[in-house]
This record gives sequence, C-alpha cells and structure tokens, in this order.
Amino acid sequence: MILRLSRLFVRTLREDPADAEVASHRLLVRAGYLRRAAPGGFTWLPLGWMVYRNVERVVRAEMDAAGFQEVHFPALLPREPFEATNRWTEYGDTLFRLQDRRGADFLLAPTHEEMFTLLVKDLCSSYKDLPLSIYQIQTKYRDEARPRAGLLRGREFVMKDSYSFDVDEAGLQASYDAHRAAYVRTFDRLGVPYVIVSAMSGAMGGSASEEFLAPLAAGEDTFVRCTSCGYAANTEAMRIEPPDAGDADSQGEAHVEATPNTPTIETLVALLNERFPTARPWTGADTLKNVVVMLRHPDGAREPLVIGLPGDREVDAKRLEAQVAPAEVEPFTEADFARYPALVKGYIGPGVLGADRGLRYLTDPRVVPGSSWVTGADRSGHHVLDLVCGRDFVSDGTIDVAEVRPGDPCPACGGPVDLARGIEIGHIFQLGRKYAEALGLSVLDQHGKQVTVTMGSYGIGVSRLVAVLAEVYHDERGLCWPVEVAPAHVHLVQAGKDPEIAETAGRLAGDLADRGLTVIIDDRPNASTGVKFNDAELLGMPIVVVLGRGLANGVVEVRHRREGTTAEVALDGVVEHLMASVRG
Amino acid sequence: MILRLSRLFVRTLREDPADAEVASHRLLVRAGYLRRAAPGGFTWLPLGWMVYRNVERVVRAEMDAAGFQEVHFPALLPREPFEATNRWTEYGDTLFRLQDRRGADFLLAPTHEEMFTLLVKDLCSSYKDLPLSIYQIQTKYRDEARPRAGLLRGREFVMKDSYSFDVDEAGLQASYDAHRAAYVRTFDRLGVPYVIVSAMSGAMGGSASEEFLAPLAAGEDTFVRCTSCGYAANTEAMRIEPPDAGDADSQGEAHVEATPNTPTIETLVALLNERFPTARPWTGADTLKNVVVMLRHPDGAREPLVIGLPGDREVDAKRLEAQVAPAEVEPFTEADFARYPALVKGYIGPGVLGADRGLRYLTDPRVVPGSSWVTGADRSGHHVLDLVCGRDFVSDGTIDVAEVRPGDPCPACGGPVDLARGIEIGHIFQLGRKYAEALGLSVLDQHGKQVTVTMGSYGIGVSRLVAVLAEVYHDERGLCWPVEVAPAHVHLVQAGKDPEIAETAGRLAGDLADRGLTVIIDDRPNASTGVKFNDAELLGMPIVVVLGRGLANGVVEVRHRREGTTAEVALDGVVEHLMASVRG
Repeated sequence: MILRLSRLFVRTLREDPADAEVASHRLLVRAGYLRRAAPGGFTWLPLGWMVYRNVERVVRAEMDAAGFQEVHFPALLPREPFEATNRWTEYGDTLFRLQDRRGADFLLAPTHEEMFTLLVKDLCSSYKDLPLSIYQIQTKYRDEARPRAGLLRGREFVMKDSYSFDVDEAGLQASYDAHRAAYVRTFDRLGVPYVIVSAMSGAMGGSASEEFLAPLAAGEDTFVRCTSCGYAANTEAMRIEPPDAGDADSQGEAHVEATPNTPTIETLVALLNERFPTARPWTGADTLKNVVVMLRHPDGAREPLVIGLPGDREVDAKRLEAQVAPAEVEPFTEADFARYPALVKGYIGPGVLGADRGLRYLTDPRVVPGSSWVTGADRSGHHVLDLVCGRDFVSDGTIDVAEVRPGDPCPACGGPVDLARGIEIGHIFQLGRKYAEALGLSVLDQHGKQVTVTMGSYGIGVSRLVAVLAEVYHDERGLCWPVEVAPAHVHLVQAGKDPEIAETAGRLAGDLADRGLTVIIDDRPNASTGVKFNDAELLGMPIVVVLGRGLANGVVEVRHRREGTTAEVALDGVVEHLMASVRG
Repeated sequence: MILRLSRLFVRTLREDPADAEVASHRLLVRAGYLRRAAPGGFTWLPLGWMVYRNVERVVRAEMDAAGFQEVHFPALLPREPFEATNRWTEYGDTLFRLQDRRGADFLLAPTHEEMFTLLVKDLCSSYKDLPLSIYQIQTKYRDEARPRAGLLRGREFVMKDSYSFDVDEAGLQASYDAHRAAYVRTFDRLGVPYVIVSAMSGAMGGSASEEFLAPLAAGEDTFVRCTSCGYAANTEAMRIEPPDAGDADSQGEAHVEATPNTPTIETLVALLNERFPTARPWTGADTLKNVVVMLRHPDGAREPLVIGLPGDREVDAKRLEAQVAPAEVEPFTEADFARYPALVKGYIGPGVLGADRGLRYLTDPRVVPGSSWVTGADRSGHHVLDLVCGRDFVSDGTIDVAEVRPGDPCPACGGPVDLARGIEIGHIFQLGRKYAEALGLSVLDQHGKQVTVTMGSYGIGVSRLVAVLAEVYHDERGLCWPVEVAPAHVHLVQAGKDPEIAETAGRLAGDLADRGLTVIIDDRPNASTGVKFNDAELLGMPIVVVLGRGLANGVVEVRHRREGTTAEVALDGVVEHLMASVRG
C-alpha cells in the first residue's frame, strides 16, 4: 500500500496540545494520529487507526493461536444480569446507565462477565463442553471520574476480554496459565516491556490475580519489586508480613501525659524526646496515628472508618480504595466531627473507637498484640504512653493500607523492595465461582452431578497499548514505531523538486508495495525539505529513505529512525536492502 | 486454519427460535451463528463473527481501493454538536440519551455527520485539502420502536459510514459517483443482489439520494420499478406526476345531498351509483376522502393534519412518515375529535378544513385545480357532489402520501410500475451544505474567498449484510454461504469411527490449511453420520467433503453445497480439486 502525504488526512502540529500530560498523548496529537472528540473520548485519524489495527491484529492472532475463540457481544446491555450480580449498584458512578424509549434500564458495559456467563449457560451443559475460553475485542465504557492522558484512561476504549470456563480448580489453573502464556507472547511480539505483578482483584471478586504492567513513569499504578527475590506486586496488592506478637505482661502500665500543642506526629515526637527521653530516641514509628475517613457505600450509606497505623506512615489512598471497594472514600468533614464529639482532632485514641461506638476501627498489621504505642488520649493536649495492643485496646480488625516505602521488607524473602510506576496493559484473574453462582451456571460432571463452573477473566487494554507503545517508542524528535505496529514500513522523502525525484520515489514505492510493504511518500509540493525531515521524525516510521541530490550518483540515503543510523545505499539495491531491514 | 467441531463453540438447534420472523434470523440462530443478548441486540458466536469479519474485510478493502481513508470516532458523544444541527431534538425517541457523573448530556451516536464535519473543520482550511472522503466502520445505536428480524433492524449495529467534502457541486457529484461505484463493486464482490432506487433523504436533510436495496421479500422497504424504463424508487420517494388542471367553469355547481349511512367509501359509492347514476359508474376515485392524523413534533407539540386523497387509495404510513419527519404520526383520538366538533366522522369535507381553522389541510397531487369531487358535507349523512378544486375549495398544499399500486404510471415514462420488497443495504446522499453551515465548515477557495464546504454522506449496513447474505443464500436445509464470506471454505465430515478416517481428515485439513484455506472438521465422537450430514448442510460451508467407506478405495465424496452436486474424487487429487473449486 502507498500513502501519499499530499492526500493523506494528517496534519502535524508544531505546538503541543494544551491538555497533554504525557509524552504519548502529546506526540500522538502532534503527529496527527489522534484528536480529542469528547471528554475521555478520542478520534483516531488514519495513521493512528493503522497502528491501532496492527495492535488489534497481533492481539487477535495470539488469542486465536492459543485456541481461544472469538465472539462479540453488544455494548448496550439490559440491567437484569448486572442486578443478579449486584454490579448494577456496586459499580457506582463509573457505570453509564440509560433508559430506552419504554423506560427500561440499560447500561454501557464496562466489562462482560455476566453476559459471557449467561451465554455459556445457554449453550453448555456438560463437562464435555469444557474447558472453554472465549474472547472478544470490543469497545467498553466507564464513566471515569478523572479521564486522563489521552488513551491511557478514557471513558470509551477497546479491550480484549477473555473468559475461561472449567469444571474444577485444576482446570481453571490450566486456563489461567494458558492466558498468562498468551499474554507473554502478545506483549513480547508487540515489543512492549512489562512486569507481571500480583494484583488485587478489586470489584471483580475472585482470588488469584496478576497484572501486566508496562514500567513507565507516566503510569498511574505503583508496584513494588523485590531487589533480592522475584516478588513483584501492585502496591494495592502488597501485603506486609506482620511482626511477631510481643509480650504484654513484661511492659509497664499505660499512663496519660499532658502533651500540649502536639497535634502532629512531628510535634509529638519532639516533645517525647524532650520530656520522656529513653535510650533509643522516639520516632514516628513508636506512635499510633488514627486517621478518620468516611466511606460511601454503593447504596449511598455513609460509614465512618478509623485507621490506626504507625505515625511515620501515611494512608496510601489507592491501597485504601482497593481495600474498601466497592465503597468509596470521602473526607471526614467538620460536620462529621461535630456528629462525633468523642473524636478530638489531633488527639484521637483507641479509647473512643470501635464498631460498638459506631466508629469502626481497623489497624495496620504492624499493630500486633503486645506492641506498645504512644497515641491520643482523646483529650486535647494529651497522649497516652505504653498503651499495649491486646492488653489495653483492641481494634475491629486489620487493614493493610499504609504507604509502602523503598526498603520495606519483601513479604516473600524479607529483602528490601523498591517502587516503580507502571501502566496496566493486561490483567488476569481467577474469578472462581462468583458469577457462575450468581447466574446459575453449572454443568454435569463425569459422575452425572451438577457442578458450578469455575471461571477466569482476562483483559488486555487494546487501545491503551497504542499509547503505551508511543510512550515506550519515542524520543525528543517524535515517535519511532516498531515494525510490527508502524502504520508504514518505509517513509520516502522527496528532497527536491526535480521531476526525477518524484518519478524515482513513485517507482521505488511501487516496488516496495509489490513486495508487501506499506510506504508513505512525502510528495507535498509546498513543504520544504526541512519540514519534511521534521515530519518524518515526528511521524516515526521505522525507516526513512531520502531521495535527493544523491540520485545523480545513483544513491539514496537510508535512515533507521530508532537507531539513528544513516547510510548511503545504491538505488539499484535499495529494495533488497529495505526488505532485509524490515523482515530482519 | 482448522476448526474442530468437537471444540468449536457452536451448538446447532433442531427447533426454530420462537421469535424468528425471517429465514435469515431463524437459520443464523439455529446454526449457532448468533444468539439474542438484549432487545435489539445480538451476540455473535464464533462462526457468525467470522462471516461478519469477512463482510467487514470486503467493505474495508473496497473503500480503501477507492481512496477513502479510514478513521474512527467514539460512539459516546457530547450533546453540543447535535444541538447545533438540531438533531439532539429532531431525532426524537430514536436517540439514546444519557448523562455522565457530572450531569453533562451525552448521546450514543446514530450517525456521525456532526463529528466528521467538526473534524474536517479542525484539520482543513484550504481547497487544496479537498476533495476528501473519510469513513469509519463503527457501532451505531438507535432506539428503534420495533427492533425486528434479528440483524435486520437492531438497536446496536455496525455501519460503514463515509463522508465526502468538496468545494463545489461538481466536486460533490464526483465524490458521490465515486461512492456509488465503490458500492457497486462492494455488493458485487459480496454477491449481494441489489437495485439502486431513488430515495428520500428523510431526517438527514440534503437533496440527491439513492438507496441500494436487496430485493427480498423479508425487506421492510417497498420500491417501485418501472416495467418500461429504468426508473426505480423507494415508494417513500416516489412522486406521482399530477394530471393536467381541469376547467372549473365548464362544470356544474356544487350541491349537497343527503347520503344516509355512508360513512365509508364503499357505502358512498354504492349509494351514488344507485341514487345519482351517470354514464360512467361512480368509483372510489371520484370521491375525496379526508383522513385526520395527529403529528407529534420533536419538541412535543401536537398538530392535527388532514390529508385529502382519492377515496380508492389509502394513506401509505411509511410514505406519510417520510414526508412529515422529524414529526411522528399518531392516531387522531376520540378526545381529539371532541376538541374539534366541526369534524364529523365519516363526513369530513374541505368546508371546515384549513390552517386558518387550526386544521392544516394537504391534498394528494391528483387533486388539481378544476378537478371535481364527491366529498363530505361536514354534516352526518350528507355529502357534497361536483365540488371543484380551486373553485369551491383550496387546500394548504399538496402531500404525496397515497399508496402506490402496481400498474400506476411511472413518473418518468408513464408506463406501468410494479412493486417489490427490499432490504436497504446502502444509502448515498448528497447532503449539501446543511451540516457545514450549521457547524461553520468553510475553506479558502482558489481566489482566497471563504466558501462553505459541500458534503455527501454514504452508509453501508455492515452487520445487516450478514443477515441479507443469509437471506439470499439459504435453502430449506440450511445456509449456503458464498466462498468470499463463508466462515470456512471446506467442511470435512468424518463418516465413521475407523481411525483411518480421523487420520486422513486431519492430514487433508492440514494440507488445505497450508494452502491458505479454512477447514472445519466434524470430528465429534458422539454425533451420528446423519447428524453430521444435517449439520453440514445447516452450517453451510461451500464444499463438504465426506470421508467414509470410500477411503478403502482411495476416494472421498465432494459435495458442492449450493449447487447440490456430489462427486467421488480420488484422495490423492482432492487437494488440487478443492483448491480449484475454491479459487475458481
């Protein structure tokens, strides 16, 4: 195929778009691949759509090669199946809901567990019909509170979503492993770097779950990686190893002390070291900070939650959100404090907390029985020292939402972890029987007994991958696509107005197209050679061929965009040279 | 590619689905290509999705070959652009409207004129950027009052929609002609029969417009075809040639007569022939029937409309809908009659009608000045005779909504027309400047002057084509796909449990797959040969190869599904034989 820039529907921009937060967004818009169409919605221009279709082709080919079968569901779905699994409510504001002309409730599907479950229920009745893995590549809708960064978090986006159906755990594990392997092949073939991390299953329910994260600073996810063993986890999923329980009896009695003007951990630690010096100086880690938030449940109910954690750590908002989902976290307002006069801001202690007092109290896993703390005495300007967990107070349970820090011990080996940012490109879940139970999907097993089917759910962010590829493959001059996804293999620049240049470019493009390559010719009559060079670098085809003065000597210049190399190549050998480079 | 029926996600059904009105729907569900998922929404199963993707591939290839460039818009769009063209309101109940979490208004796009116009406005500024034709293949949403017949009229469906942009009429005509030619090539290649008919532009605005109709009894559209000249038109678009005006002065005076018990045309004509006999017997065509309906405008306003037409013809509901759109037609209720006491049911005449009386009165084009009528005298049991149009009454204008009948004169040549049913598979419009004006799309012309761009809009019902193909290509035993769109080229039936049969089938499938064919193997261990034969005919691959007892003599049976022919072919020549049949 030959694309002539003089006719191609693309306009490159000199200026960065005002709303672009990340390089991929900035460059995809500047290079004329994408255009904003709506809040969280983008229009693909021809070059962008070619990249998208290449990504989709690779994803589909790898799913098919793994023996998964493609189907396709509507995006506009009736309420009832989502009511059966409670997701009509649990999805909260993220679900786009609407009504048809008769007033019946519909939604725009954010994901399709219910529909796949019902389809398999409809068509399968025996263990002989399983295992089964089916998938679709389809547009999804989520009313994101904060759409951002172009394709990275949109309200309308394309996902490949697969679902596996098995009679038992061993089958589910095999299906899960098959998807994991197919994802590895897909991302390898696309040239996307990734880390496989343990993940929370969040609103999806289920148990084992891993994410494929592309390790990129533009990412919204943070993950921990052990520097010693292979452990990696989304920080949302990281679970700290609690210390051993202490011995309460060997410790002194709790005592309340006046600690004026110590509403913060810093002021409190300074006062402790001044007024109550010990061999080991006090640190924030010796204090128990009690943080109050308000949970809003999907049904609208509000519930206060108090989190007790070592004073040297903050609550990690994303870890907290993951732990309390589908409830959402809201600030505890002045009006809320007014409703709970026992809570003395800056001096909250376990003495007034607990579900029986309407203030559910969950503590960090480090708050083990026998551990001793300095914490609020529920009186302004007062703290209690030597308050021992299990002896002097108890909580309603643990919650593991404190921030993770580089150097924290790895839960697998104890070695130090580090932290990095990543973009989620794939997610594999062992859903188990949640959906099958809610929707009544069972089959007859070998012994003629009805068994509930066990399921897996597996997603790839297909449209997001275009942004991830742009994020990985660019430099300060523009995009530089890998061959597998580039809109064209070769970009021919007509550097000069000599008719021979245009003729040669046309002939060369024809020869390459005959060999199966896609070729862009920059034949724009009114663009300077400088503009053409800049645009070639911005557009980012893997190979740029410059046809200019060298033609008099029978040579053209071949530039490899990503490597930055340039070579003169004889015109009569250039087709073979380019074929070898592309097919490499 | 090889598909094994033992693993393929397909279940054939013995019974027709209860809600299937047409053969395509019945067979696509029975053969396991499709499954109902929602009101007006279907799920594609693997075989159906393969057919869909083949159709999509052909459509895309022909659009690309014509030089049209593919883009892709969101389906979830903000209200504002549709407000600017008034379609937010005009679309009425057919538009799916929703709000996001902030309460902003959105819609699910039924078509994308506004967005394409805005995109071109965004990127193009000069005549040098034109002509331009861009298209997308995308899911559309319409809240149809009566979803029907599976894929034929769904609420979620895939359209290929193209838009052309030109500086002048000549350019628009050239773009229109290019699309028309591309559509001819597309439908020819798919093997879909079609008739190109003149069409109303309906709610789309604009002028010249043609539809591609597949002439099928299952169709919702009725079109007229002249048996003498080449004229063809959707009945909605057919405009009758009015007769010459008559001479009012030569006619006798109007006179009211008692016509007791003649509330219908039949009773009236019988009474006229009995009481007022003339040389030529009275017929319904001599009477002027006045039909009252209520229009509901998109803003909710209701307006009565009275249609005067010859008494031997009914109002054609679809022709009326097309003429009054975007208003909708509702019955004129008893309560409405109560509000207009001048209207005497069965005896309504022009005497009480007219916009000045709040009863807009439009007459059939046959009601020309000088024509004489028998019509209601606005008094129960009374009619007026010799009432002459132009002399004794006038209407507020004409409306061409009377039913068209076989034998009616062709508006082009006067010869008799006949009527047939068809399914709309394509539609091409000369939109003109409506959208460009509403949204401010103009470019600088050769003389440096801003000119409003003129547009065309062109659609193909991609998902609907699957149903149309099934409607065209089936018989009483099942589907019989053309090679271009069949999910597989060859269907191998293992007729027997001899291990040699399975081995030979596997080897043959492998050889065919190596040559680029897609092969289904019916290797189901528990299906009888009879069931396999029936399913092969139901599923409808173009060639069925039976491997059975003949293998002992080195032969297999090759059946051509559509032609119904069967031949024994030597096993060692069968690959070449099949390749020739498929590629032939």
